[in-house]
Formats: sequence, C-alpha cells, structure tokens
Amino acid sequence: MICHVVHYRLPNSDTQGDFWGVLENETLFPLQDTYCSTADFLKRGREQAYNRLRRLKGGNDKDGIPVNQVELLSPVTKPCRVLCQGANYRQHMIESGMNPDAKSFNMFFNKSSASVCSGDSDVVRPNHVQLLDYEVELGLVIGADTDTSMEISDDNIHEVIAGIVIGNDISARDVQVPQMQFFKGKSYRSFCPTGPVLCLMEKEDMHYLHKLNLELRVNGEVRQRDNTANLVFKPAESLSEFTQVSDLSVGDLVLTGTPSGCAMQIPSAFLVKALSLLPEATKWKLFVKGQSRSKKYLQPGDTMSTSIRSQDGNINLGTQNNRVVEAV
Amino acid sequence: MICHVVHYRLPNSDTQGDFWGVLENETLFPLQDTYCSTADFLKRGREQAYNRLRRLKGGNDKDGIPVNQVELLSPVTKPCRVLCQGANYRQHMIESGMNPDAKSFNMFFNKSSASVCSGDSDVVRPNHVQLLDYEVELGLVIGADTDTSMEISDDNIHEVIAGIVIGNDISARDVQVPQMQFFKGKSYRSFCPTGPVLCLMEKEDMHYLHKLNLELRVNGEVRQRDNTANLVFKPAESLSEFTQVSDLSVGDLVLTGTPSGCAMQIPSAFLVKALSLLPEATKWKLFVKGQSRSKKYLQPGDTMSTSIRSQDGNINLGTQNNRVVEAV
Repeated sequence: MICHVVHYRLPNSDTQGDFWGVLENETLFPLQDTYCSTADFLKRGREQAYNRLRRLKGGNDKDGIPVNQVELLSPVTKPCRVLCQGANYRQHMIESGMNPDAKSFNMFFNKSSASVCSGDSDVVRPNHVQLLDYEVELGLVIGADTDTSMEISDDNIHEVIAGIVIGNDISARDVQVPQMQFFKGKSYRSFCPTGPVLCLMEKEDMHYLHKLNLELRVNGEVRQRDNTANLVFKPAESLSEFTQVSDLSVGDLVLTGTPSGCAMQIPSAFLVKALSLLPEATKWKLFVKGQSRSKKYLQPGDTMSTSIRSQDGNINLGTQNNRVVEAV
Repeated sequence: MICHVVHYRLPNSDTQGDFWGVLENETLFPLQDTYCSTADFLKRGREQAYNRLRRLKGGNDKDGIPVNQVELLSPVTKPCRVLCQGANYRQHMIESGMNPDAKSFNMFFNKSSASVCSGDSDVVRPNHVQLLDYEVELGLVIGADTDTSMEISDDNIHEVIAGIVIGNDISARDVQVPQMQFFKGKSYRSFCPTGPVLCLMEKEDMHYLHKLNLELRVNGEVRQRDNTANLVFKPAESLSEFTQVSDLSVGDLVLTGTPSGCAMQIPSAFLVKALSLLPEATKWKLFVKGQSRSKKYLQPGDTMSTSIRSQDGNINLGTQNNRVVEAV
C-alpha cells in the first residue's frame, strides 16, 4: 500500500520536537509518537503510519489539520549517506557524448548530508560560485541496514527501499568540473532540497519506480521533464552495485541521476578535444567563461519548482519551491 | 600529552566485546570500561586513557599484557565519514603535472567506511580489478561535532582533531580513473586498513602534524617515503574547507593525501593530450594496458608494511602488515 508521510514542526507552538504524519488530500493526520530521525521513524513509526492510513480509508478518522499550517522538514534527516548516480537518463547520457545502450559503467559519487535541507529551503549560492545548477532526481530512501554485497532485483527491492522522495542535486559547476571531483561542488549547505513528501511503498508498489514523471521549472519555465522509464541503470541494479562499495543504513538516501536540461552545456566532442590540448588553468578559465554565457544558470532571486508524481495520481511526492539567494 | 591507544579483542576468551587500552613499549594497559565506537571512546574513555598513562608514567601501574597477545582492531569504527584529499604532497603533485606552489585547489573526495578494516587485514582484490594500488596517508581522527563552517588554525586545531592514525587508501585504478569518480574505485571492502595505533594528542602536541615520517614497503621494498612537512594543504587549512561542505562527527577520519611512489604511472603531459584525442573506450583500454606493464601494482601474495612515526620517537602509529589476496 502507498502511504504518503511528512516530517514537520508546529510553528508558534509550545510543543517541543518534530512530528511525523500521514498526508492525504492536503490534510495532515499526525502520528502520536515523535521520532528522532528518519531511521527511528522507519523502524518504529512505519506501522503507526499504515494503521492511521487504514483508519482514514475506513472513514473513521476526521482528525486532520491543513498541511499548510505546519512547517515541513526534510523527510530525510542528517546525518545520512547521500549516494548518487551521474549521467543515468538516456537523453542526458546521449547529450553527454555517451551511449546509453553500451552501459559501460554506472557512475557513482556522493554528496555530504550537510547539503540536505527541506523541500522549500532557500538555496544559498556561495560567494565564490558563479555556475549554480539544478538537477531533479528521484531519491530512494533506504529501509534496511546492510554490510555486505547483495543481489537486489525488482522482486526483493522492497526489502531495501522503504520509500521515495524528490531530491534536487544542486551543483556548483565551477567547483565540480575544474576540480575533477563532484563531492565538493555538490556538498555545500542547502545543495540538496529533499522532500517534502516521503512516499512509503510496499512490494506491490515498486513497479512505480519505473513510471514516475519528473519536472523542474525555473521561474515558471520547464527546464527538465522526463520519466523514470528512461533511467539507464535501474534502481535494483544500481543498489546491487552500491552494496559492493558501501554499507547502507535505514534512512540513507540514493539519488538516481538527473534528466537532460541542466544549465551546464556539455561542449561538443570536438571542443572537448580542442580544450584538452590547452594547459589546465587556461582550459578551465575558458570553460567557466564559456558556460557563463548560458542564461540557464541559477541567479539570486530565481525560483525553482520541482515535482515528481505518477501519471495515475497514486504517487505524488509534492512540490519543492526554492528561492536562490546570495550567501551573506 | 601524547597517548598511544589501541582498540582490541581478546582472542580465545569468554570475555564479550571490544576493549581499548593504552600502549606503552609494546605493553598494553587495558581500560576497565568498554566503548561501543570510536566516538564513545573519545567522549567517555579519553580521560580514562590519560589517567592510566599518568599512573604508568608515575611507575604505579604494572598491570600490562604483551600487545601481541590480543587481536588489534581498527581504532576508527564504522560507520564514519572517510574524507580524503588528493595530490597533496609536493613531489606527488609535481609528478601529476601540477604546480604545488600555485595551490589552485584542494582536491576533495571520499571513501565509504565499508572500506575501513584493521591495520593488519588482508586486502582483497575484487575479481574485476587488475590495477590495485596503495597510498600511505596520515589520518586525522575527528574529536568534535560540527555543523557549520569553521576557521581552523594551528592554534585551535586541537579542538577538532582528537588524534592521528595510519590510513592506507587502497585504490582500484582501473575503476577510479576510467569512471572519472574516485568514490567507487576506492571504497571496496578492505580498501582502507586503519591503525593499529590511535595517537591521542593535545594542543602542545599538534606541531607533530608537520613532522611525521611516512613509509610504505611492498615485499620489503620501499615504495613511498616522505614527511608531512611536504603536505601542500596543511591539516588546519584543509579541515577549514572541509567544514564548508561537510558536517564532522567525533570519530570521523580525514585522510590527508599520499606521497609520490604509487604504482600508477602518471602519463606525460604529451601522452595525456594524445590520449584525449581518442574515443573514450579506446583511451581507457590503452590506459589499462599501459598501466598493466608496471610491475608495481599489487598482486595476490604481495605483502605491504606501512608505518608513520616522528623522528624523535615520541609518536609511533605502529606498523600495518597486510597481505593481498584474490576475492573468492
């Protein structure tokens, strides 16, 4: 059964602590207990959420509050692992000069969980960054503790994934690309808006992983729009390989890659070869200069609106609304 | 005051659990309490260790056991962050075609803590890996919880670092380089022998960070030998930048980069440019083929011996002894 939950705080209230609740038609049905982390919620609160949902569906639960009366928090709490995949949508791979049918390797990197923030957080552009980019991604929330390699397939993926969220893999391209490592350029604080909704899924719901619509708009203009059907390395295959190189803990986040449409313009193969003949410093100066011409990089004052849902409406991970601001 | 401690298990004993003890002249002086993690030890056990050391130095403590009677464990327990720096010794940077005096950027990446193992663990070469490499590194063990950017200098670094260990950043170059991300190629299980000794340090000891001798031998032959005086980005400067992109927790590990002498031969600038003109697949095939000619890559049956100590003998992080084995 699909169960949409949110993690929230009551504003202007004496009530201490963070809460979790079931979300149904913009109405929030609070769970009685509090949970100190996503792992704690998934271990102790999951059954409570499903019980509450069953009461709701039975029509025996009228005790909701409008969700817009609370402050929504990231449904993925820190610290956690944020494991990521690069170049994992067909079109994005083609535009990056790679052949999606060759599937030569599954590109892994990670972000620090310092970057994780709520789905409607301001995204802060550090002062030394010019090339700020966006990446809508389907996020898998881990529901198992693992410490060894596993063979994960669509038949047992429900034993490893507890649910899904929206992730926006914000990137400082002028750090990420010239420094040849993704970790730093993608880990600044506020660089991973997550949520607002955590959609809990069971075995029979996992087919939705392959049929979710992703969309990201900047100032109202659609920049990214794709469907998880076009993922090159599917979640089960990717998780199997992740277990070879990482332990997983309940509450960890796996971002499955972003569709085409980012601000970064992948230079043509010819240009890449020409650039590679230049000294490093000159090459990266030209890279930043060339990219700066793109009008698509995020500027202070821009707004992003990001959503993931299934065509049939059964899954709706909510909408992220973020404003880009300059670091003070 | 400098205090050498080890984390160990009693073999063939009914005593449950892991222990910590003070190491002095190859004799181990056990602490009474047990600690469930490095963080737990640093928070509750550090003072016990110092008290025990003071009793020892006062000559009032004869209750030691020979350290070779116990099984030494990694003094850094999992899970933890393993933050890393690349190309951070002068000679290594020069050989990589970079100018250490330009200090254009501090290369950050990380390993998963799944790779962490004891200092004398077998290093397992995965079946798909040919180019297995070694990297001796000074490891900083974090002693503070941080969640914001900090300005760390040699004057306050003792508030952030609890001590130091040996780390060996084992790398599958045929995964790391062609896949353009370090994380996967450096995170396989057994790819980070850590310890055996955790050297606790206080404010007045931190000057030793700049004067430690590192050495790594393969089958008795010296492959890497350098001194932390040649670190390009010093620990305080590096930690300051790490706090911009990562939270730190007590018990995390920061590997500060490796000296020259690894198995991987950095191709000449000319060859790099020539290779860059080839299609990706051809380029990486040639890379692996070219590197395979090097006799320095680790083969099953090889042994490594790795040490870090100060010239004056006050700091001795012990010796790692590892055997390379084929995955079964």
